[in-house]
Amino acid sequence: MFDAAELGQVVGDDEFKERARELRSRLLILQYRSLDLARFPVLIDFAGVEGAGKGTTINMLNTWMDPRFLRTTGYQALTEVERARPRFWRYWRDMPPKGRIGLILSGRYSRPLLGRVYDEFDELEFDSRLSEIIRFENALVDDGALVLKFWMHLSKSQQKKRLEELSADPMLSYRVTDFDWNNHDHYDDFVAAAEHLVTRTNRAGAPWNIIEGTDENYRHLRVGEIIEAELSRHLEAHERAAKNPVGGTRVDPNDVQNGPTVFDSLDLSKKVPKSDYRERLKTRQARLGELGRRAFQQDISSVLVFEGPDAGGKGGAIRRTVWSLDARSYRVHQFAAPTEEERAQHYLWRFWRRLPRAGHVSVFDRSWYGRVLVERAEGFATEGEWRRAYNEINDFENQIVDHGVLLLKFWMHIGEDEQLKRFNKREKSPYKHWKLTDEDWRNRELWDAYLQFGHDLVQFTSTKKAPWILVEGNNKPHARLKVIETFIDHLEERLG
Amino acid sequence: MFDAAELGQVVGDDEFKERARELRSRLLILQYRSLDLARFPVLIDFAGVEGAGKGTTINMLNTWMDPRFLRTTGYQALTEVERARPRFWRYWRDMPPKGRIGLILSGRYSRPLLGRVYDEFDELEFDSRLSEIIRFENALVDDGALVLKFWMHLSKSQQKKRLEELSADPMLSYRVTDFDWNNHDHYDDFVAAAEHLVTRTNRAGAPWNIIEGTDENYRHLRVGEIIEAELSRHLEAHERAAKNPVGGTRVDPNDVQNGPTVFDSLDLSKKVPKSDYRERLKTRQARLGELGRRAFQQDISSVLVFEGPDAGGKGGAIRRTVWSLDARSYRVHQFAAPTEEERAQHYLWRFWRRLPRAGHVSVFDRSWYGRVLVERAEGFATEGEWRRAYNEINDFENQIVDHGVLLLKFWMHIGEDEQLKRFNKREKSPYKHWKLTDEDWRNRELWDAYLQFGHDLVQFTSTKKAPWILVEGNNKPHARLKVIETFIDHLEERLG
Repeated sequence: MFDAAELGQVVGDDEFKERARELRSRLLILQYRSLDLARFPVLIDFAGVEGAGKGTTINMLNTWMDPRFLRTTGYQALTEVERARPRFWRYWRDMPPKGRIGLILSGRYSRPLLGRVYDEFDELEFDSRLSEIIRFENALVDDGALVLKFWMHLSKSQQKKRLEELSADPMLSYRVTDFDWNNHDHYDDFVAAAEHLVTRTNRAGAPWNIIEGTDENYRHLRVGEIIEAELSRHLEAHERAAKNPVGGTRVDPNDVQNGPTVFDSLDLSKKVPKSDYRERLKTRQARLGELGRRAFQQDISSVLVFEGPDAGGKGGAIRRTVWSLDARSYRVHQFAAPTEEERAQHYLWRFWRRLPRAGHVSVFDRSWYGRVLVERAEGFATEGEWRRAYNEINDFENQIVDHGVLLLKFWMHIGEDEQLKRFNKREKSPYKHWKLTDEDWRNRELWDAYLQFGHDLVQFTSTKKAPWILVEGNNKPHARLKVIETFIDHLEERLG
Repeated sequence: MFDAAELGQVVGDDEFKERARELRSRLLILQYRSLDLARFPVLIDFAGVEGAGKGTTINMLNTWMDPRFLRTTGYQALTEVERARPRFWRYWRDMPPKGRIGLILSGRYSRPLLGRVYDEFDELEFDSRLSEIIRFENALVDDGALVLKFWMHLSKSQQKKRLEELSADPMLSYRVTDFDWNNHDHYDDFVAAAEHLVTRTNRAGAPWNIIEGTDENYRHLRVGEIIEAELSRHLEAHERAAKNPVGGTRVDPNDVQNGPTVFDSLDLSKKVPKSDYRERLKTRQARLGELGRRAFQQDISSVLVFEGPDAGGKGGAIRRTVWSLDARSYRVHQFAAPTEEERAQHYLWRFWRRLPRAGHVSVFDRSWYGRVLVERAEGFATEGEWRRAYNEINDFENQIVDHGVLLLKFWMHIGEDEQLKRFNKREKSPYKHWKLTDEDWRNRELWDAYLQFGHDLVQFTSTKKAPWILVEGNNKPHARLKVIETFIDHLEERLG
């Protein structure tokens, strides 16, 4: 595989200047067109053998293009903040927004590769890490992103020469560490693992390009020309698509089939008498407070998700749940329409960035499930988008849970009549009036549709690891206690 | 996840008759439209808990649709013929052609699931098997196939009841085996593994549908209606696409950049004097014959691939290589344009079916690399198709090699002048004249393009496991000996 990048390709300085000048202006034009259109981010990864000039080519691209709209990210060992989150958190956090270009050094491929070279991972584990990367890239590519990957190659003898040259240069010797020489000793293992890595992850939407790294001029031009060709092709496809946008359509209430759902089996008459409620709430909150402190000390984080019909009692249950927690240890996130910054990203991005720190609790009042609820109902997401969302959500939640986070999802359910009663009450109440909007009435027209969508999401996303807890919400005391007690049960199980 | 399929959904017999009659005629119309269009195959998988009625629903579909164009395949333990090939061989072999529908029982999901339930596979191995399935399904879906997957569910108590009912019925009791009761005892593990399986492999192009299995009428209708909806959607998309076909375009010889390639470094002046040749050929053929017999006895199969410019000496090298092998142990496959049967399948299908039996040698004179050579050059494959082919080919070859097959790929290279000399000689020779066609002259116009395409394929598909051997072909004796000796070296290494 890599022999094909040992041809000794060289570009003379004069030719380089000439070609670079022209390439540069073409790249700039593409960059601005992409920025104008603002329909997709570009992610460009640089990987390869040590000394093959990844860094200098990135520097060259920064001088060729407009650096204000380029973002270069080089990853190092995980920081404490990063270690507290799932592995891919930092890659999501650093995603360039639509229209921008991200250049990545030592990114998501780095750890799996080194893990394989130094036998920390066997082949299965290595493949599993690569599959994780493929799922990440699929999510981006399906959302329209352009993902380009460059593998910079040097032969073993070239690498040795390069490291020696760098070491001899007083200005550059700092770049060569024992780590690099150690990797050089493992050159053959490195190349064998790289070969597997490239073949497995070389997918049409996120292709690898193997670049001969010996000659700087050649390397810069080749990378630049590939970026030009791929960006240009991608841009044209998106510009065409922008002319004939395929939108979703709002669900027609008359089209909704009123089939049975998981919610039918809920006994909405469940009730806790007011007299019992105060006492039980007090003891449960005290217990939760205690468990919360222990979880905080042990760095066990929780994510609580609340969904369900409008006026289903999400807010009230959340307030009573967080009541007994240390105010520094939790955060309640409410989600309405995405902000401009959020709209420029993949729909999961705004949730990724709100994952809790170690030992903290993140409460999501509405969540990523909006994709398969309101966005599906209102046609904000196309059919393709909401259909593939179940799988994307499964994958997102798997990563959260595999990281050791306690993830609980509460569906606060009420009957159609109960909702009407609450709407009417809100309308009349001077201090709850603001809670009721025209949108709530509009959503109510789609009551049956939302039930069906809720059923679908429970079916595809309620798993042992990340269960949906269906809460009978007509009686608020019952609902609130059920939420708190469920959280307590799971914390007790986790804390042992 | 599966709780959502425990709603007790029931359809009465009268309603069933009415709805089934209408559904049936709609399904038939779709089936014929699909057959007429003949642009994609439909693969429908049935999986789920024992006793959930997979078999009877398949039978029902066979009575509803035209059984001449349906093919039902139920898999059992691997046969000897199947064990001799990579795992997915039988699934490729049984792929329905474009326009047809395949119904699959106990298919590719069956082994991984049971392996996980009975702790034969740990989670990593299970995931690895699922990734293998995803790659298979991706290849089909990328090629336009409709892949539908049904998971038939019963609760644990329903399953028990069903197995007891079947056991009590003298006509049906044969269906219930100890294996089924054993699975019932592992019900919870089964469901947990199934949950992971469904979330991981529930991709937009190949979605899972979870079906409540208790009531036969409901189950039949639900499956039929989903097939109707998905087939109809898929058909419409393909019918639209058929009106505006996106074709590839033939490469324009003037557009080809004459860059350096891996072939530049070949020393085409390498030569074996005629006097040495006869002797060396004789001893090498004898040695190969001996190794071939041992490989045959030890069930070690080989796949030899030959590519390279027209008149590069593929045929001559192949004849001298197989000369010393037992005629029953090898087969030479030549590939020209695909037959009608082959055109109705994925392009890899005709190669999958020709993989060798245990201990046999399959020689491919031209191969799957046509996708990224002639099909790319002539525009028979679209850009998307040949671009993703590298990855599909890597995956195909990985499966061959992981199965223990020796895979060697020879690129028989000659210079442009040498080719002209050979063409002229063929033209004049009374018994080689047939070898030279107008197409050969046409291909010659694209000499530089083919070099570039050859370079690309070496770059992406020459791996340690499945190397490309570049053979200096100007001198036929040298080329033939190099092929035979390479084969000998690898067989010796393999046989120890």
